[in-house]
Amino acid sequence: MFKYPGGRVYEKREQVAAGKANATYGNRGMTLEADLNETNAYYLERGIAVIHKKPTPVQIVRVDYPKRSAAVIKEAYFKQPSTTDYNGIYRGKYIDFEAKETRNKTSFPLQNFHEHQIYHMKQVLAHGAICFVILRFTTLDEVYLLDAHHLLEFWERKEKGGRKSITKTEIEQYGHLIPLGYQPRIDYIKVVDKLYF
Amino acid sequence: MFKYPGGRVYEKREQVAAGKANATYGNRGMTLEADLNETNAYYLERGIAVIHKKPTPVQIVRVDYPKRSAAVIKEAYFKQPSTTDYNGIYRGKYIDFEAKETRNKTSFPLQNFHEHQIYHMKQVLAHGAICFVILRFTTLDEVYLLDAHHLLEFWERKEKGGRKSITKTEIEQYGHLIPLGYQPRIDYIKVVDKLYF
Repeated sequence: MFKYPGGRVYEKREQVAAGKANATYGNRGMTLEADLNETNAYYLERGIAVIHKKPTPVQIVRVDYPKRSAAVIKEAYFKQPSTTDYNGIYRGKYIDFEAKETRNKTSFPLQNFHEHQIYHMKQVLAHGAICFVILRFTTLDEVYLLDAHHLLEFWERKEKGGRKSITKTEIEQYGHLIPLGYQPRIDYIKVVDKLYF
Repeated sequence: MFKYPGGRVYEKREQVAAGKANATYGNRGMTLEADLNETNAYYLERGIAVIHKKPTPVQIVRVDYPKRSAAVIKEAYFKQPSTTDYNGIYRGKYIDFEAKETRNKTSFPLQNFHEHQIYHMKQVLAHGAICFVILRFTTLDEVYLLDAHHLLEFWERKEKGGRKSITKTEIEQYGHLIPLGYQPRIDYIKVVDKLYF
């Protein structure tokens, strides 16, 4: 295991998300990212929506280019992303979201979001985007869609010295439980349909 | 210099594009990517549009995590992107494009585009996206916006055994010359306004 600059641990499960392990097992133990990647692949194949996760931004410092084989990056660093991780198009509308998970059971820590992601959400909302966050309570196996306007209110509360998290009760009140399944795993488009169309 | 898996050469100018060199000089010698990044930053700051380049996709194989300093990626490889490089939102609409440059003066080689990028363009068009390509003739210092429908027709011609490039004359006929300047450098939104709104 290694840690990201921010201190977050790089888990084996992320390698699965990145498609490095064979994904023959069930939902249990899959990251939110892996589940969303499969969900988005499902939407893409069926012509439902075109939504992709952006690649992890990396600052490349040194590259070797051996003869007769592919270039090898020998030194690089993780960079802070300047946007949310997911965007695309659905029913002619620009869709933008971030996905985060917590092991907490009673609240969702706001430290999961970065200042520049909040800034990005404000920007796309101002231009008419459908923007939200997908929040997973990993130990409860519950996934919620929370509209970005609500997230921004909770963020504002924190900035004003209020609590540093969103309570589970608040997420139940303002968010929308996403149906989980086998295919697609996290059928968030169902909630988007109800909420924005 | 090194080569990408596809054989494309990684140039010094790309390091400028990635923000590694000081950008005190003028337009001359800047990559199309660097110019578009500056243009998009200009649009973002003024609240005109929210359009970002996606990070270069990298397959991370090995990471060191020294104590008291940031994680270092020690082995990684360039991956083929599965989408176009740029997307975002403008006037409430989903915008998607790819940008390429050539040193040719009389035609634009279609080998600059990959099969999966063409597939992606078809997908987003089917969902109502504004989709195009930005083509720079580097040695002529001319930049064109070509709607994706036209690109797809030229691609189709190639697939049917026709010519492997778009002639300069065709680009002049079907494309739109983008005004170049100091700020923003490549004012493609002006053309988008005329063409799609």
